[in-house]
Amino acid sequence: MEAAMTEDKAGRRGRSARRDGAAKPHGVPYIVRNIPTYDILSEENLQKIERTADRILAEVGIEFRDDPFAVDHWKRAGAKVDGVLVRFEPGMLREIVSSAPSVFTQYARNPANSVQIGGDNVVFSPAYGSPFVMDLDKGRRYGTIEDFRNFIKLAQTSPWLHHSGGTICEPVDVPVNKRHLDMVYSHIKYSDRAFMGSVTAEERAEDSVEMARILFGAEFVDQNCVILGNVNVNSPLVWDGTMTTSLRAYARANQAAVIVPFILGGAMGPVTNAGAIAQSYAETLAGCALTQLERKGAPVIFGNFLSSMSLRSGSPTFGTPEPAIGSMVVGQLARRLKLPLRCAGNFSNSKLPDGQAMQEGLMSMLSAIHCGANFILHSAGFLDGLLSMSYEKFVMDTDLCGALHSYFAGVAVDDNTLAFDAFEEVGPGSHFLGSAHTMRNYQTAFWDSTLSDNEPFEKWSEEGGSTDIATRANRQWKKTLEEFEAPPLDVAVDEALCDFVARRKASMADGWY
Amino acid sequence: MEAAMTEDKAGRRGRSARRDGAAKPHGVPYIVRNIPTYDILSEENLQKIERTADRILAEVGIEFRDDPFAVDHWKRAGAKVDGVLVRFEPGMLREIVSSAPSVFTQYARNPANSVQIGGDNVVFSPAYGSPFVMDLDKGRRYGTIEDFRNFIKLAQTSPWLHHSGGTICEPVDVPVNKRHLDMVYSHIKYSDRAFMGSVTAEERAEDSVEMARILFGAEFVDQNCVILGNVNVNSPLVWDGTMTTSLRAYARANQAAVIVPFILGGAMGPVTNAGAIAQSYAETLAGCALTQLERKGAPVIFGNFLSSMSLRSGSPTFGTPEPAIGSMVVGQLARRLKLPLRCAGNFSNSKLPDGQAMQEGLMSMLSAIHCGANFILHSAGFLDGLLSMSYEKFVMDTDLCGALHSYFAGVAVDDNTLAFDAFEEVGPGSHFLGSAHTMRNYQTAFWDSTLSDNEPFEKWSEEGGSTDIATRANRQWKKTLEEFEAPPLDVAVDEALCDFVARRKASMADGWY
Repeated sequence: MEAAMTEDKAGRRGRSARRDGAAKPHGVPYIVRNIPTYDILSEENLQKIERTADRILAEVGIEFRDDPFAVDHWKRAGAKVDGVLVRFEPGMLREIVSSAPSVFTQYARNPANSVQIGGDNVVFSPAYGSPFVMDLDKGRRYGTIEDFRNFIKLAQTSPWLHHSGGTICEPVDVPVNKRHLDMVYSHIKYSDRAFMGSVTAEERAEDSVEMARILFGAEFVDQNCVILGNVNVNSPLVWDGTMTTSLRAYARANQAAVIVPFILGGAMGPVTNAGAIAQSYAETLAGCALTQLERKGAPVIFGNFLSSMSLRSGSPTFGTPEPAIGSMVVGQLARRLKLPLRCAGNFSNSKLPDGQAMQEGLMSMLSAIHCGANFILHSAGFLDGLLSMSYEKFVMDTDLCGALHSYFAGVAVDDNTLAFDAFEEVGPGSHFLGSAHTMRNYQTAFWDSTLSDNEPFEKWSEEGGSTDIATRANRQWKKTLEEFEAPPLDVAVDEALCDFVARRKASMADGWY
Repeated sequence: MEAAMTEDKAGRRGRSARRDGAAKPHGVPYIVRNIPTYDILSEENLQKIERTADRILAEVGIEFRDDPFAVDHWKRAGAKVDGVLVRFEPGMLREIVSSAPSVFTQYARNPANSVQIGGDNVVFSPAYGSPFVMDLDKGRRYGTIEDFRNFIKLAQTSPWLHHSGGTICEPVDVPVNKRHLDMVYSHIKYSDRAFMGSVTAEERAEDSVEMARILFGAEFVDQNCVILGNVNVNSPLVWDGTMTTSLRAYARANQAAVIVPFILGGAMGPVTNAGAIAQSYAETLAGCALTQLERKGAPVIFGNFLSSMSLRSGSPTFGTPEPAIGSMVVGQLARRLKLPLRCAGNFSNSKLPDGQAMQEGLMSMLSAIHCGANFILHSAGFLDGLLSMSYEKFVMDTDLCGALHSYFAGVAVDDNTLAFDAFEEVGPGSHFLGSAHTMRNYQTAFWDSTLSDNEPFEKWSEEGGSTDIATRANRQWKKTLEEFEAPPLDVAVDEALCDFVARRKASMADGWY
C-alpha cells in the first residue's frame, strides 16, 4: 500500500508542492478560528463562579501595595479603601471594564504582520520569562542576549507563530536595569512582528513604550496598540506596585496590558478548580479595571494561568488535566466580559524535549485552543516548569503550531469537500489516488509536518539514522539560525533606536538585581 | 516556593495517600463522562453529510463479496441487489439499525470489571493488531505469544485501562489458524476484564464465542454480551466475506461486532474530510445494519478510523489535525443514530516513544474523548503506524489514560469547590497550603502521574539520573511484569478451556497464512 502511494502522482506532486510551500516565508498573520469554543459549564454554574468572585471582591478584597496612585484610582471610582486593601461592590468592576475594546489590532512594523486580538482571532506567541536555556548539545545554562536573539530569529522564521513575544528568555549577561533596552531593540531589529515590552519597573515599561514611539511615531502610538506588557498578579489577592505601575504605564500610553494571575492550586489559590477560577476571575478583573481607570478605552487582555501541584513533592505540575479542563470555564467567563483572552499553551515540567514534554504541552495547548484564547503565550519553547527555554522544543512546538492551523480550519462542508463526484468516479473497491477530486484537492488537503517522521520503519532506520524528533529538531534550529536574514529596518529608525539605548544605558550604573 | 511546599503537610500526606492509591489494583471499571461532547458542526451541515452518505448508498452502492448469505439478507430486506453490489434507499439502513441497543453491558469474568458501552460511558482498550513489538532494549522484532501475554499483563495491572483488548499484538510464532485459540485463552487466563475475539475467519470467530461460552455458560452468552469482534470494511465501499461472515457469527451469538472502516484520505476515500466522513458513515451504517438482519437487537458498535497521508512520501500519517477534527463530526453523526461509538486514540507514526509519539497520540486521544467515543481502541501501545506495539509507550499511554480520568471529571461547582471559606481564612498575600479547605480536599485534588518528572532540575539530574520519560517507562514495565500475579481463575473452567484449545488445535494442521 505504501509503495503504491509513494509512486502515485498525488504523492509526487504533493512532495514538490510541499517544497514550494516550505519556501514561503510566512503563513497567515494570525488565525481566524473556524471551530466553535468548547463550552463545558452551564449558565447556572457560571453564575455561581461569578457570584463567588463577587463575594471575594466585596468581602475579602484585594491589596494594592506600593502604588498610591492605584489606590487613589479606586477611591475615586467608589471602591471601599482601607489602607491598601480595596473592596468592590458586586458588578462595579464589570461595569468599569465595559469600556475596554473586545477586539483590537496590535500593529507590527511590517503591516502584513499586524495581529487582531480578540473575537475569533488567535495569536501564537513564544514562551516568556525563563532564566535558563537548554539544548541537546550543551544542556542547561543561564540565558544570554545571544540566546535571546536566537529565539527571536527562530520565531521570526517560523510561519506558524504570529508574534515575537517578550522576555523570550532572560539575558542574564546584561545588567538587570538595562536588559529591557536590549530586549526591545532585539525584537525590533530581528523580527518584523508585533512584540511585548518590559514590566519589571515603571521606567522600564516607559522606556519600552518610548522605543515603540521611535519606531511607529508618537502620534500613532497614542492612538494605536503597538506593544503589550505582561503583568502578573501576586496571587492570592495582591497586586504589587511594580506590576500596577507598569500596567498603568502601558494603559496611559494606550498600549495593552496583559493581566495574568498564576495560580498554583493549593498554594496561591484553592486546590479545587471552581475556587481557583473564581479567584483568577476576581484578580484579573481588578487588573483590567485599573487599566480603564488609568485611561478609559485602553486595550487590555484578560489573562489566566491555572496550574496544579504534585502531591508527592509539592512541586508545581504543568500540562495536567485539571487546569486544562478548568481553562474551558475561564474562556466562558472571559467571553461574558467581552474581553480578549490570554491563555498559555505548550507548557511542561519535563527537563527534556521528550514524550512527557509534548504530551503535557499539547494537553495545555489544546485546552487554550478549545477555550477560545485569543493570545496564546508560551506557544513555543517552554520546558522545566518555565525555568528553561529549549531550542529543540521551540522548533517542535512551532511545528505543532503549524498543525493547529489546520485544526482551527475545522471541517468545511460544501459540494467539493463532500466529494460525491469522486465516489461516482471511483466506485467500490478502487482507490482515490489519481481521481479528479484528489488531483483538485490534495495540495491543501493535509498538514505535513517538517519534523515528524512518517517514513516506513526500514527507511527511517536505514536512511534516517533512527532519529527521534528531538534530534531532528536539533538539526533544524541550527540550520535555521545559519540561514537567518534579518528583515530590513529603516536605517534612520535603527540609528535612533541605538542612540536611545546608548543614552539610557549611559544614564545609569549597571544594576544586577 | 518549591522547598516550602515540599515540606508542607499537604505534600507529605499527599505522598502517602498516593502510595495507598498505587496499591489499589484498579480504578473505576469504566468512565462516566462529566464533560459534554465537543460539537463542531451545525445541523444543516450534518444533514448535508448524511444526505451525501444516502446518495453514496443509493446511487453508488456497496459490494458484499464472498458471502452469499449477506447478500440474501439484503435481498430480503428490500435492498437493490445486482450481483454483489447492493444499493439502499435513503433511510432504509437507519431504520434497520434502530433495533440495536444504544447502551449495553459487556460482561467481564470479574463482574466488578464489566463495562457499559454507550451513553456517557467511556472504555479504554489497548492497541490492536501490530505484527511487531518494540522496546528500548531489543528494538523492533516480530511479536510472539509471550509478548502477547506480557501486554495483557501490563493492561490488567493498569488501573487506567478498562478492557483487555483483542489482538493486542500478533503472536507470529503461533500458526495463523491457531492463534485465536491462544489469544482468547491468554485474555481469559491473565486478565479478568472484558476482551475481544478473533475475526480472521468465521470459524475462528465461532471458536472465540465458544470459549466465551465455556467461561460464562452458553445460556448467559446467548442473552448477554461477553465478547467483541472488531471487523474492518475494505474501503472504499467493499465488505469482504471474511469480515461479514465473522460479523454475522458475532451477531448470531448476540455478541457485539465493532464496525470500523479505516479510511486513509486520498487513498481509500476522498482527501477532503466531509467526503471521507460521509463514506465512513455509509460503510459503517451498512455493517451495523447487517448485524441486525442476522439477529435483530444484537449489540453493535459504530466505529471509525479516519487518517491522512504525507504529501511528501504518500505514507499514512497518524495523530494529525484533520482526522482529529473530523472525528468530532463522526461523533455527532453517531449520536444521531443512537449507537455506541468506537474511536481510536493514542496513535502515532513515530518509531520511538518520543515527543512525536506522545504529541500525535494525544492529538488523536483528545479527539476521541471530545467527540464522545464510548469505546476507545488503541488507547495504549500504538507506534510505527500500528505496525509495532511498544512496551514503553504502552505504560506511557496508560499513565496518560489515568490523567484523562481526571479530565473527564470536568469542573465540579458546589460550595466546597467554590471554596469561599478558604478565601475568608487565607485572605490576601498568604497561602493555601495548610488551610482547612486544602486539608479537606488535597487528596483528591490533582492527578499525580507515576511516570512524569516534576522534580526541580537539580533533583532530576542528580538523584533521578536525568532520565527521559521513555527510560522511566522502560523500568516500569519490567517491574510490573516481574511482580505480576494472574487473577484467580476457576480450575474447572481453566481445564475446560485448555481442553477445548487442545482439541481444536489437534483437529487441523498448522496453517501459516
